[in-house]
Amino acid sequence: MKAALIATGSELVCGRVHEGNNYFLSQHLHAIGLPVVTHYVVGDDSEALRLAVEHALHIADIVVISGGLGPTVDDITFETLEKMFNLHPVVHEPSKERMEYFFNAIGKSVLPSDCKMVTVPDNAVVFVNDAGLAPGFAITVNGKDIIVLPGVPRELHSMIGKVIDYLESNYKLRKKQSVTFKVVMMREAEVDSGVREIVHDIKGVDVSITYEAGMTTVMLTANDEAMLPVDGIVDKAKKLFGSKLIYGYNSLEEKVVKVFASHGKTIAIAESCTGGLVSKRITDIPGSSSILLGGIVAYSNQAKVSLLGVNPDTLKAFGAVSKEVALEMATGVKDAFNADYGISTTGIAGPDGGTKDKPVGLVCFGIAGSATYTTQIQFAGNREQIRTMATNYILTRLLTCAGLE
Amino acid sequence: MKAALIATGSELVCGRVHEGNNYFLSQHLHAIGLPVVTHYVVGDDSEALRLAVEHALHIADIVVISGGLGPTVDDITFETLEKMFNLHPVVHEPSKERMEYFFNAIGKSVLPSDCKMVTVPDNAVVFVNDAGLAPGFAITVNGKDIIVLPGVPRELHSMIGKVIDYLESNYKLRKKQSVTFKVVMMREAEVDSGVREIVHDIKGVDVSITYEAGMTTVMLTANDEAMLPVDGIVDKAKKLFGSKLIYGYNSLEEKVVKVFASHGKTIAIAESCTGGLVSKRITDIPGSSSILLGGIVAYSNQAKVSLLGVNPDTLKAFGAVSKEVALEMATGVKDAFNADYGISTTGIAGPDGGTKDKPVGLVCFGIAGSATYTTQIQFAGNREQIRTMATNYILTRLLTCAGLE
Repeated sequence: MKAALIATGSELVCGRVHEGNNYFLSQHLHAIGLPVVTHYVVGDDSEALRLAVEHALHIADIVVISGGLGPTVDDITFETLEKMFNLHPVVHEPSKERMEYFFNAIGKSVLPSDCKMVTVPDNAVVFVNDAGLAPGFAITVNGKDIIVLPGVPRELHSMIGKVIDYLESNYKLRKKQSVTFKVVMMREAEVDSGVREIVHDIKGVDVSITYEAGMTTVMLTANDEAMLPVDGIVDKAKKLFGSKLIYGYNSLEEKVVKVFASHGKTIAIAESCTGGLVSKRITDIPGSSSILLGGIVAYSNQAKVSLLGVNPDTLKAFGAVSKEVALEMATGVKDAFNADYGISTTGIAGPDGGTKDKPVGLVCFGIAGSATYTTQIQFAGNREQIRTMATNYILTRLLTCAGLE
Repeated sequence: MKAALIATGSELVCGRVHEGNNYFLSQHLHAIGLPVVTHYVVGDDSEALRLAVEHALHIADIVVISGGLGPTVDDITFETLEKMFNLHPVVHEPSKERMEYFFNAIGKSVLPSDCKMVTVPDNAVVFVNDAGLAPGFAITVNGKDIIVLPGVPRELHSMIGKVIDYLESNYKLRKKQSVTFKVVMMREAEVDSGVREIVHDIKGVDVSITYEAGMTTVMLTANDEAMLPVDGIVDKAKKLFGSKLIYGYNSLEEKVVKVFASHGKTIAIAESCTGGLVSKRITDIPGSSSILLGGIVAYSNQAKVSLLGVNPDTLKAFGAVSKEVALEMATGVKDAFNADYGISTTGIAGPDGGTKDKPVGLVCFGIAGSATYTTQIQFAGNREQIRTMATNYILTRLLTCAGLE
């Protein structure tokens, strides 16, 4: 049993909007043991959609189409399928009533053209849209399933539970066992050789490794019949990657927040080159207010002195991008917020501002707790990558220095 | 002349990694007047790739494939094409020399299996890879062009100039005229009706409107023969959307940085619920250090008092999420950094922490300059959307209050 996904929308195919529905659906279908073999993205173009549907039905048992269910002329999904498979359109009354209720509430009446949005094939299984107007539906054509969903991500996301229920009750799916972990601040090739060591004696495991800005994600998936010795794999990974391993958390920042919260420890953040990114990532996590007392983005030397208590002589002697200043920033922010730990970044994120002695990508870090720590790292990449890698570095190092891995 | 794009990689099709090469290539091909009709994503699976290539050649004149050029067994692009089109593989000597040089530099020698990476069809146009090992190439099959590029985004990006040069010198492409602007803090439906008014008298224009977290992007593109009256369109948009219009800048934060820099004005940022996101977005922009003196993320009441000079009585009387506290935060951060403008956010980003009087999504804002301003807004959405919309709001309002639209 295999699925193929088709996303429609001219804004997707021309590259103005980054397609995300196929990505989202793939994750959910794989999670229930339904492998996705191909994604298609086509414009609001009936002929392109027809060809994609034909191709998808040729290679997969289940085809999921998102988008093109709105009221305007560029919404062509239903019409295209109607012509391809001789469907009989009927108005889905519960969805029409919802639409009438919604339009009345904002003082508008339903136009005949609006009914297009709530039209479904007469023999369809309908998925009601709780977050919008157009319902989704499933039809069976020549023994294969075509599922059609609205393209607005919020609406499609709100419907995924119903789609999963439909698929699980109609097909015998077998969830594959898998284990995912991340390794921070290690080259992809090093992680790769570690992973080869881990899976050396394990039969029937597929390895997938991807890397982005200092963060490698490893997914090990069992082949159909195989069972994964998850505990053994995780033990080996812990031994190999130590504090660089992130397992059981969705992200490094989630690990920091949960680990610090469980120990009742607080942090404060002083940022120069990362400019708020470290604070932003920590506060992405709900509940982060219990560990983060606050942060100071100190771009100017004046702010480093007046708000973080950096000694002007240190700035003069070593420059703003130095281990000495980084450490005083960390100590200063710890004291300013009365936190258990203060952490800091100061560096040159580029693209300008580098010198021969202090090139773009050089970042200095400080950590102040019961003891202090400082170091400097030369990163390679663009402004965004350097800032991301610096953030990954300081959060990883904070866990190590606090002994909270 | 039309193009179709195929990205390969099992990590893409299973939804573990968000496909980005098709997205990137679409933007670049559309920019030179080469419309993309379909994207495909297939796993590391020779049969799926073969079917996608056949389908793509059926509907497009130029097919661009990314990925599957590495040295390992899951890299099947070249082999698949070799079988499909009877290609004759040859080693690309300049790329092999680059590889040897690179491997020698890290103390390793080239293995026979590595040569797979630098093998190309004998009649191919080769695109040297300056950011990695495997070169890209273009071949002509039955009068159609197949372009094959490495899948690592950094490598593909480094090669795009050569690919564009190749396409422009081989095909007569006609760039379509287009104009793009953004409208912040306005409902998509309102923007839509404004855009309909703008294009009412203009013939031959395609409209594309997309919305995300308080930011609507409008792209107007001329049909093949049409010319766009760009100045008239922009004038009308300025009249309709006023300070909510972003035109001539890639983003709101770029507008803030460039406008404030051109006026020699500085800002400082006090954040509670946005937790560093406002600072992060400003410092995403190279050169932002000339306008941003710094920021304070003050989550705790204590920090609001000690670092921002918020009066404890104000906190007690109105609570941390209040217009009164927001205004004192803005004034406090302005003074702390000695900036021309201080801005602040304090609110409830959720998912927890809401009360009946102060529900999740309520955000209070303050601006302190030569005059002061404060307001509160109730946003709807998840934590990320609320934080994004609050950031959009305060930056837009800052431009208005400073009279720098």
